[in-house]
Amino acid sequence: MTEHHSTRTVASRLRAARARPVVPRGPRRGLGVGELRLDGGFWGALQETNAGATLQHCLDWMEQLGWLGNFDRVAEGATGGERPGWQFSDSEVYKLLEALAWEYGRTGDPATGALLGKVVDRVAAAQDEDGYLNTCFGHAGQAGRYTDLSAGHELYVTGHLLQAAVARVRTVGEDDALVDVARRAADHVCREFGADGRGADGQAGICGHPEIEVGLAELGRALDEPRYTEQARLFVERRGRGTLAPIALLSPAYFQDDVPVRDADVWRGHAVRALYLAAGAVDVAVDTQDDDLRAAVERQWTRSVERRTYLTGGMGSRHQDEGFGDDWELPPDRAYCETCAGVASVMVSWRLLLATGEVRYADLIERTLYNVVATSPRADGRAFFYANPLQQREPGADVRPDAVNPRAEGGVRAPWFDVSCCPTNVARTLASWQAYAAFVEEVPGGSSGGGSSDGVAVDGGTADGGVVVSLAQYAAGDLQLSVDDRDPGQPGGELALRVTTEYPHDGRIRVEVTAVPDRPVTLRLRVPHWADSATLTGPDGTTIAVRPGWADAATLALGDVVTLDLPVAPRLTWPDPRVDAVRGTVAVERGPLVLALESVDLPDGVLLDQVRLDPAVAPRAQGDGAVVRAAVVPLPGGGAGTPPFGPGGPGGAPEPTSDTGAPTPASDTGVPAALDLTLVPYHRWAERGPSTMRVFVPTARPTARPEEIR
Amino acid sequence: MTEHHSTRTVASRLRAARARPVVPRGPRRGLGVGELRLDGGFWGALQETNAGATLQHCLDWMEQLGWLGNFDRVAEGATGGERPGWQFSDSEVYKLLEALAWEYGRTGDPATGALLGKVVDRVAAAQDEDGYLNTCFGHAGQAGRYTDLSAGHELYVTGHLLQAAVARVRTVGEDDALVDVARRAADHVCREFGADGRGADGQAGICGHPEIEVGLAELGRALDEPRYTEQARLFVERRGRGTLAPIALLSPAYFQDDVPVRDADVWRGHAVRALYLAAGAVDVAVDTQDDDLRAAVERQWTRSVERRTYLTGGMGSRHQDEGFGDDWELPPDRAYCETCAGVASVMVSWRLLLATGEVRYADLIERTLYNVVATSPRADGRAFFYANPLQQREPGADVRPDAVNPRAEGGVRAPWFDVSCCPTNVARTLASWQAYAAFVEEVPGGSSGGGSSDGVAVDGGTADGGVVVSLAQYAAGDLQLSVDDRDPGQPGGELALRVTTEYPHDGRIRVEVTAVPDRPVTLRLRVPHWADSATLTGPDGTTIAVRPGWADAATLALGDVVTLDLPVAPRLTWPDPRVDAVRGTVAVERGPLVLALESVDLPDGVLLDQVRLDPAVAPRAQGDGAVVRAAVVPLPGGGAGTPPFGPGGPGGAPEPTSDTGAPTPASDTGVPAALDLTLVPYHRWAERGPSTMRVFVPTARPTARPEEIR
Repeated sequence: MTEHHSTRTVASRLRAARARPVVPRGPRRGLGVGELRLDGGFWGALQETNAGATLQHCLDWMEQLGWLGNFDRVAEGATGGERPGWQFSDSEVYKLLEALAWEYGRTGDPATGALLGKVVDRVAAAQDEDGYLNTCFGHAGQAGRYTDLSAGHELYVTGHLLQAAVARVRTVGEDDALVDVARRAADHVCREFGADGRGADGQAGICGHPEIEVGLAELGRALDEPRYTEQARLFVERRGRGTLAPIALLSPAYFQDDVPVRDADVWRGHAVRALYLAAGAVDVAVDTQDDDLRAAVERQWTRSVERRTYLTGGMGSRHQDEGFGDDWELPPDRAYCETCAGVASVMVSWRLLLATGEVRYADLIERTLYNVVATSPRADGRAFFYANPLQQREPGADVRPDAVNPRAEGGVRAPWFDVSCCPTNVARTLASWQAYAAFVEEVPGGSSGGGSSDGVAVDGGTADGGVVVSLAQYAAGDLQLSVDDRDPGQPGGELALRVTTEYPHDGRIRVEVTAVPDRPVTLRLRVPHWADSATLTGPDGTTIAVRPGWADAATLALGDVVTLDLPVAPRLTWPDPRVDAVRGTVAVERGPLVLALESVDLPDGVLLDQVRLDPAVAPRAQGDGAVVRAAVVPLPGGGAGTPPFGPGGPGGAPEPTSDTGAPTPASDTGVPAALDLTLVPYHRWAERGPSTMRVFVPTARPTARPEEIR
Repeated sequence: MTEHHSTRTVASRLRAARARPVVPRGPRRGLGVGELRLDGGFWGALQETNAGATLQHCLDWMEQLGWLGNFDRVAEGATGGERPGWQFSDSEVYKLLEALAWEYGRTGDPATGALLGKVVDRVAAAQDEDGYLNTCFGHAGQAGRYTDLSAGHELYVTGHLLQAAVARVRTVGEDDALVDVARRAADHVCREFGADGRGADGQAGICGHPEIEVGLAELGRALDEPRYTEQARLFVERRGRGTLAPIALLSPAYFQDDVPVRDADVWRGHAVRALYLAAGAVDVAVDTQDDDLRAAVERQWTRSVERRTYLTGGMGSRHQDEGFGDDWELPPDRAYCETCAGVASVMVSWRLLLATGEVRYADLIERTLYNVVATSPRADGRAFFYANPLQQREPGADVRPDAVNPRAEGGVRAPWFDVSCCPTNVARTLASWQAYAAFVEEVPGGSSGGGSSDGVAVDGGTADGGVVVSLAQYAAGDLQLSVDDRDPGQPGGELALRVTTEYPHDGRIRVEVTAVPDRPVTLRLRVPHWADSATLTGPDGTTIAVRPGWADAATLALGDVVTLDLPVAPRLTWPDPRVDAVRGTVAVERGPLVLALESVDLPDGVLLDQVRLDPAVAPRAQGDGAVVRAAVVPLPGGGAGTPPFGPGGPGGAPEPTSDTGAPTPASDTGVPAALDLTLVPYHRWAERGPSTMRVFVPTARPTARPEEIR
């Protein structure tokens, strides 16, 4: 009988509390999923909806569509004929298992554990004698194993199985049915694809969709099994050498088989593939002390984020291949920004954050969590965005509530997709959200002022031999963590912090120390890159200005209160002049939230195309959104019978403006000369019926960033 | 022995001279391919290159790749196993046959005739007993006939066969091997897909890729066979009813099976499919006097041109499905603008021009011919663009000269593609270019002032009982046409015009009457929509201003000279404010030519991203291009570690300008404060090595069209 059927012991509760998806070699460890109890708030609410609605929703759809039944058919020897789902549908089951595992680990809810156990039993029954496990290949009436490495997704699917098993190892231990299954599957992969197996001699020995790398690396860590790490390393090294057979009209860059990982300068091709691969490469680099490989991924991260990433943190500019575009190719309307790419981006940045401590990785995680991951699920947790564009030109079509929907179209969240990778990816991320909220770092004796701190300290440096607790994300709740390996029953090993905040609605984050261990602890707080006027108030009541980066608050004592004030007033954000697709527009952000203008918030008779935002009037906060000043302009009539381009007279006079720089609006439309419009958080757009939407709003008087021409 | 092996008689030469692709019921007939001898010039040169290089080039590639051999294998009963080429590769052979047929018809060159005859013999040998002809389906080791209507392209391929046969009927007559083949194939289609055949009772009875409609309709006209017209009508009517099985992730709109043709308001989905279908629908509408259907296509044309068409005339905004985007979705960098969509757009507009006489159709044809069709072939006629984007962000990759290239990528013309529809489509269009240059219209007795004239007349109205000759496109050469059915050996039936012009390099078009028939002839000249200051000088030397539209020159007498002066000085062209992707930019046009700024024309060290065009300085002509005044601006540095969006200070100040409105350039770059840059015709970009390119150039001071805000 596996652990999920039993009452949890103190030791197992502790293990589960400290469990986390990523445990690399190195000085930093992330929070365990049970070490932070969320007190409602933004992420607490999403997590509750995930637990209360999304997990069962996903299970029901996969049961209904036969994706779970696929395992039964293999177990019963009843394969052949039409098989429900795509060739990679098993992976959705595994991602759901991972989500259930984290949820059970965090809460210990017996119903969740029982649900998980039932699915695991069906999965386990489908595993072949030699460890191979896949419901689409290798059985009667199916294509042979590994006969389609480019498109078959077999190793990809296995990678997700291993990640699910990692969640079990870390939350309930190795003595677990799913862990047994995963170990046998991983051993099979090592036998088949080892140094002397498939992939030797320059033959194809990798999967068209990366994921096995990160799965093997983490399972290797969880089970302390160097063979798995080595196999992950082999997969990373074999990639980029053009061994995969091409898929139809796609280039080798589609699956990153164009350039070896350590030689590439930027992410390209299918975004989820590129990012899963990068996550696995960081794991391998860290565990094998391969600084060259790690530097390669950091280099790719830098260029890709600075040139190929949306304001939302979304990645993927093209629908065609669900892929990255060229540098500066960031169209808002055709932004793909797949939800899964957001999840994968968080995976990469979190690994780099643990590896380096650099605050920029935490900044991107926050941007992506609020504006991609949180955007996907509908408020009720039972429908999802697959793609997350930044402009919707035509009102979203009605979604079919009881049918499988095409992905990435329509501007509406759908209950399920024919390719339904996103719902379960959101589920596993939300179920383990705590793991990304903070990390703990040992301070080597003799050092002072933590090496990775790029902020300022309120109260001196970091004490030698102590620990630094860095808050990377902010949410109200109780953080209770062991700063060393002592059992929490033993006194003196535990730090407890009470975080009080309404972030991101409000910018104040109050941290109170409610328990301290018997060693020095420094609290390090992230000041986001957009927070240009943040202040930090220390235990002694002194308030200082803190710049973006890490701010060391104090060496903590019981009862200390530290307060960070972040400026979350709405602000205007301008595109780099090379982002052609949004020239002459401006976006509005509020704290970590990107805002959006939706047609449902416009006066009757006004089209989104007619709105010109007046950047001379500062936006003001309203709810979690903002109110901006805007003009409504008339639009050219039709009837020219030509493409929509025409003469504008010599000089192409700029839009007329008043002396104050305010726009001169149309006077004959019956619309006020200037009007106030409300923008809402992007992550909640399309919750009020079909609408058109823009994140980037044209300005009344098109302007460039001031720095463009000096 | 078929006609192409024999010496041409006078009668056969006459037939060939008068041959043309489109002969609808109605008062207007297009020029025959032999009725205009081009005297070099823009189109004459392209046509010579097509004849001297492209035709053989296409033949060689198809021989080498086995696409021609596919016919031999069917004839020999050697099908099964790997078949070279895509399922639609036969259509390339047919389009080449059509090109050869027009070329032979126009020139009577025996070598061309012989080449054609050899290919026809191989094609004919592959035809099944019952008329079915396809090298991919229906034979040993192949999928069964019509087992994949959605993606099999069987009827599409047949449609191209019929169009090739039309070229033969019209140039050499019905007694021809290719015509025999086509007739049997068409009869087979009518038997299979007739009112009681496939497609009855709401089952799928259409092809995933339209083309059979236009082929059947025109063959029906050419052979005076109403069964073919009726079958075309059936195919048009059956479409849009959701009968085709979906293709993977594509929606029914992809192949226009979402809305019946007569109900649709706009083109959507795959652009070539939408346009071939529209061409066939016009044919059916005209031949069956179905005004409702014709009005539907006109309505679709209007909205699609005004909202979904590029400055170049290019159509197709998305790579994903090679399809139209939403209204106003016209990204320059990801413009698909497939060459074949340009060809298909000309087909549709030409049919609507003949049906209505409205000048807007001729205007779009000109725009598309110069900026899409002429853009595709390399100067030597041995490499081609498949897609025709209006911005190239990264220098085009080197093309593989001896290999099949992926389509639509790279910013370089390639010799051949895996899907190689464009080269042969260009070839058949250039070989029959004359057919689109002019049309002749009977003036019913008792009428005056031709009904379709929307310009002005220099010299009174159109004489009763005469004919109107409308010049739709301009090229130097001798136009020699029969204004009625008399044999040219008989005197009094022939009109001859000598057109002298260097258009589009120069705007003067001089038309001299070198022979007149014995009935009144009015010359009607097209004043393009962009020609805001054109003048027309009549036979008596009087010069008048003419507005865009049709300008009636005179009732002609022998020796009359009429001169049209079009303003081809470079001009600025502004996007409609709803075309978000090019806000804050301006394009430069010169006559019918869209111009482009290529990186190879920039000073050393200047990037295309740095250029800001100064719209206050009028561009001046240089060669066929223009010189513009521009500034070079510094670009933001990297290193922020965030997506490329940031604060710009409250108000987001506009770019500083001097008192004169000229841009204030960077003073520290070593680049002149203001510099002159050369733009070249878009159709010749990428001829000087890999480069980046823009049609729409950001302005120094971003401006809107003056009409946007009044």
